[in-house]
Amino acid sequence: MRLTQAFFPTLKEAPTEAEVVSHSLMVRAGLIRRLAAGVYIMLPLGLRVQKKVEAIVREEMDRAGGQEVLLPVLLPAELWRETGRWEEYGKELMRLQDRHERDFCLGPTHEEVITDLIRREIRSYRSLPLTLYQIQTKFRDEIRPRFGVMRGREFTMKDAYSFDRDDKGAEESYHRMYDAYTRIFTRCGLQFSSVEADPGIIGGSFSHEFMVLADTGEEAIVGCGGCHYAANVEKTPFSTGASAEETGPKVAELEKVFTPNLKTAEEVAAYLKSDLHDLAKTLIYQADGNLWAVMIPGDCQVNQLKLKNSLGAADLSMADPETTERVTGAPVGFAGPIGLKDIPIVADHTLSDRENLIVGANEADHHYRGAKPGRDFEVREYTDLRLARTGDPCPRCGKPLALRRGIEVGHIFKLGTKYSQTLGATFLDAQGQERLSIMGCYGIGIGRTIAAAIEQNHDERGIIWPMPLAPYQVVIIPVNTEEPSVMKTAEDLYARLQGEGLETLLDDRDERAGVKFKDAELIGIPLQVIVGVRNLKAGKIEIKRRRDGATSLASLEEVLTAVLQIVKEPLPS
Amino acid sequence: MRLTQAFFPTLKEAPTEAEVVSHSLMVRAGLIRRLAAGVYIMLPLGLRVQKKVEAIVREEMDRAGGQEVLLPVLLPAELWRETGRWEEYGKELMRLQDRHERDFCLGPTHEEVITDLIRREIRSYRSLPLTLYQIQTKFRDEIRPRFGVMRGREFTMKDAYSFDRDDKGAEESYHRMYDAYTRIFTRCGLQFSSVEADPGIIGGSFSHEFMVLADTGEEAIVGCGGCHYAANVEKTPFSTGASAEETGPKVAELEKVFTPNLKTAEEVAAYLKSDLHDLAKTLIYQADGNLWAVMIPGDCQVNQLKLKNSLGAADLSMADPETTERVTGAPVGFAGPIGLKDIPIVADHTLSDRENLIVGANEADHHYRGAKPGRDFEVREYTDLRLARTGDPCPRCGKPLALRRGIEVGHIFKLGTKYSQTLGATFLDAQGQERLSIMGCYGIGIGRTIAAAIEQNHDERGIIWPMPLAPYQVVIIPVNTEEPSVMKTAEDLYARLQGEGLETLLDDRDERAGVKFKDAELIGIPLQVIVGVRNLKAGKIEIKRRRDGATSLASLEEVLTAVLQIVKEPLPS
Repeated sequence: MRLTQAFFPTLKEAPTEAEVVSHSLMVRAGLIRRLAAGVYIMLPLGLRVQKKVEAIVREEMDRAGGQEVLLPVLLPAELWRETGRWEEYGKELMRLQDRHERDFCLGPTHEEVITDLIRREIRSYRSLPLTLYQIQTKFRDEIRPRFGVMRGREFTMKDAYSFDRDDKGAEESYHRMYDAYTRIFTRCGLQFSSVEADPGIIGGSFSHEFMVLADTGEEAIVGCGGCHYAANVEKTPFSTGASAEETGPKVAELEKVFTPNLKTAEEVAAYLKSDLHDLAKTLIYQADGNLWAVMIPGDCQVNQLKLKNSLGAADLSMADPETTERVTGAPVGFAGPIGLKDIPIVADHTLSDRENLIVGANEADHHYRGAKPGRDFEVREYTDLRLARTGDPCPRCGKPLALRRGIEVGHIFKLGTKYSQTLGATFLDAQGQERLSIMGCYGIGIGRTIAAAIEQNHDERGIIWPMPLAPYQVVIIPVNTEEPSVMKTAEDLYARLQGEGLETLLDDRDERAGVKFKDAELIGIPLQVIVGVRNLKAGKIEIKRRRDGATSLASLEEVLTAVLQIVKEPLPS
Repeated sequence: MRLTQAFFPTLKEAPTEAEVVSHSLMVRAGLIRRLAAGVYIMLPLGLRVQKKVEAIVREEMDRAGGQEVLLPVLLPAELWRETGRWEEYGKELMRLQDRHERDFCLGPTHEEVITDLIRREIRSYRSLPLTLYQIQTKFRDEIRPRFGVMRGREFTMKDAYSFDRDDKGAEESYHRMYDAYTRIFTRCGLQFSSVEADPGIIGGSFSHEFMVLADTGEEAIVGCGGCHYAANVEKTPFSTGASAEETGPKVAELEKVFTPNLKTAEEVAAYLKSDLHDLAKTLIYQADGNLWAVMIPGDCQVNQLKLKNSLGAADLSMADPETTERVTGAPVGFAGPIGLKDIPIVADHTLSDRENLIVGANEADHHYRGAKPGRDFEVREYTDLRLARTGDPCPRCGKPLALRRGIEVGHIFKLGTKYSQTLGATFLDAQGQERLSIMGCYGIGIGRTIAAAIEQNHDERGIIWPMPLAPYQVVIIPVNTEEPSVMKTAEDLYARLQGEGLETLLDDRDERAGVKFKDAELIGIPLQVIVGVRNLKAGKIEIKRRRDGATSLASLEEVLTAVLQIVKEPLPS
């Protein structure tokens, strides 16, 4: 493609609404344009990247035995009423009526439609197992659409659904998809991690999330270098054995100490010359309307998902400062377990055998030292409440965990019979017995994968596409357009590179070299082939890699081979 | 693909709602399933065909200089209000509100969005010309969805939009698209005709429709073998010179004749031993509330579009029998021009020089012979009112026209400034002058093309895919599955054909040969490779063509070459 003919509108400034770098770069590099909140136009450059992701997804879905279908966007309400999700889904479900006032929604996911298809078409165990997938536009009326295509209201998704005869088959289907997802994100050239996750609203018995690793990721995940354990930080369990030794001076009896204006655990520990770990923080939570005091070692954070699950609460939040003050009789920062009335205590299980704790005194500017659970206060329940940290022991092998951030790009679920039961998707087994299909469902956010790739691969100058996702692999930059030999060489190279099947841009614009380099870096083309008058006189062409800026010179004859070699080299691991 | 693993649910019976053969066959062959009125699931086999069409469309759009984008489905009402189409489009536009009660519609076409994009992004003549296209799901709430995917409410369409600096450029863009469409339907292996058409609601100055020819087509078109003139039958003009000679006995004076119970022109002509052409039919029409008597030669039909245009009427219909009787004083069948009061006569221009016409007498069971316009009755206006017939003279070269039926699969429009003016899509020309982009728009119905291909290519046993659209090119049918040598040979062939890149089905089902042949014919695979025990003993394999049933025997070594040769042979013309 010649840049003089291309519709690649780049921008110098990031849009004001862009909160994350991928959003900003996708707009600036001319990949997308906003039409309405959470609704984006894919411009030619963005769509090329999308098609690269789609092609990889499609190949791996086919290889895993999936068969592609295309389900409608317009879904009749009746099916959603059958599963109860017409009401359950709330305002995220976009609803409309047709000219005959029949209710429809715009598909946010397709469990209902696919299960209905299967109950109509599949009669016998001979037709199973079956995995169907589609790549399609989905709709969710997010309360706060943001991050560009990362959290849009209209977005492209690959969704797959498996139907099996029995549980063993369903697990095989699940693992086949797990492997396919691993191949997909590997082939996209992305650093990622698959982690154990919560099934959430989709339901089912277990699930994994695939996370593209990036410092700017929304989700925190832990990974073990020893045994490859990986999980969402909220899902990581800890045993009691993991507690560290107490380090502070041993105090036999409970002792009240003056801690003026020291509100954080760090300040108190420093003032008392103790380790943070010698403190126990006491936090007041509201769980379904009941108040709880929650105790956690001073160097740890409360994992709210664990707390919520252990209290069996549907709704959980920190109490506001007024409530905390009313309950403890002291300002926030001085809450403690001793003398608390009418409010039960739940504590992290590593606190159960401690006997020399520093805790708040429920009195302004005071703490206790030498506090001992059981002797000085009663704990209703000990349980695992800690949020995983870097260096925490792996729950599988005990080696230290690393904490990373990631962006969820794929999610796979073992659904079981949740939908086949509700909708009556049965088949006759070899014995003529009626049975329910065992289902799985598997999603990949296509737009999210693109955005995540940018979060992971960019610098201050723009995007750095991994080769498999690059909209074009090479850009030819003639530096001195007024020089006929430069333009002729650039044109010749353009024809030769395209002839080899390389996706090539020719920056034939009458612009300064600086503008051309800036644009090439912004849109992130992996390789620049630079034709300059000085090098050309020596019969040389410069090749520059976007990722590390490394340059090399090649003779006119060697250029093609050199470029092909770089394009085909294995992905960095 | 092995048929034991494929999700190709075929049916013996056509669905009751199927009115056309393509709809019936698409359901029976397992290409589609209905989810709601006008809303269809594309099953694996149907989607494969769709992707073939899309790939051809995409290649030719790219070759014609188009750049692919993906515009949203959810379109904000504001844009549609700007062009006035929010109101104008009526109930076909599917509307909804988001959670913040903002109005949106589901895109039925994208002139508004693309013109808005261009007015935001294009500043200079240097960025023009530009053609953008997309292949996307569209929504139109048809009052009567029918014919399967031919007239659906949710359907896949390729739409393209061109923006040019001036009229000359716009015409070049239009012709480039015309050529691309010609290549697309040729490459699909379809017999088609491009015809001059009416721009209709989309607007613009001229347009062409691309029609796939099929006896079951909705539209009538005329074509000239002499000069390649082709047009929608409603668009075909006729000059006065085309009138045939009067053949009946010459009558000098007006003479009333008794024509008892003879209501049709044919009956009257036969009774009076005259040619049909010697009659002039008189029909009463209602045009915007006014009544007109319309005269046309007895062997011709009124072209209602011509009549509507010549009367300048927005709304036109035949008067009901009661009105006709009240106005003429006679039952339907005896209306005539003589003695008609208060109602003007418009007549086909071939009637102006006639002097020996048979016309109704406005009296039950009576006609006149020897009627002469000007002498016996007054004609307000002579104009071209005839609907083209087989054998009519071509308006360009005078050679006889042929009448055919077709299905509209593509439509191209020269829009001019209709949308760029309303939305203010301007650019600065080389002189720094602000100018409006000149637009064109170009659509192809992807699902319609598939359905039309089936209307044109089928027999009583099923679909006959043109090779370029076939979901698979070859099906291997082992006749005797219980015979190990047959299955082994079939498996070997399957591997070899796939190895050559041929899209191959292996019917490895444990079914009778008759069932396998029936299914292969129903789903329309162009080539059957039949492995039977008797032929195999002689070292032979049978190759059978779906289209003409022609069979040939090939040795095991020759099979691959023979199949490849047929798959690659030029399309029948």
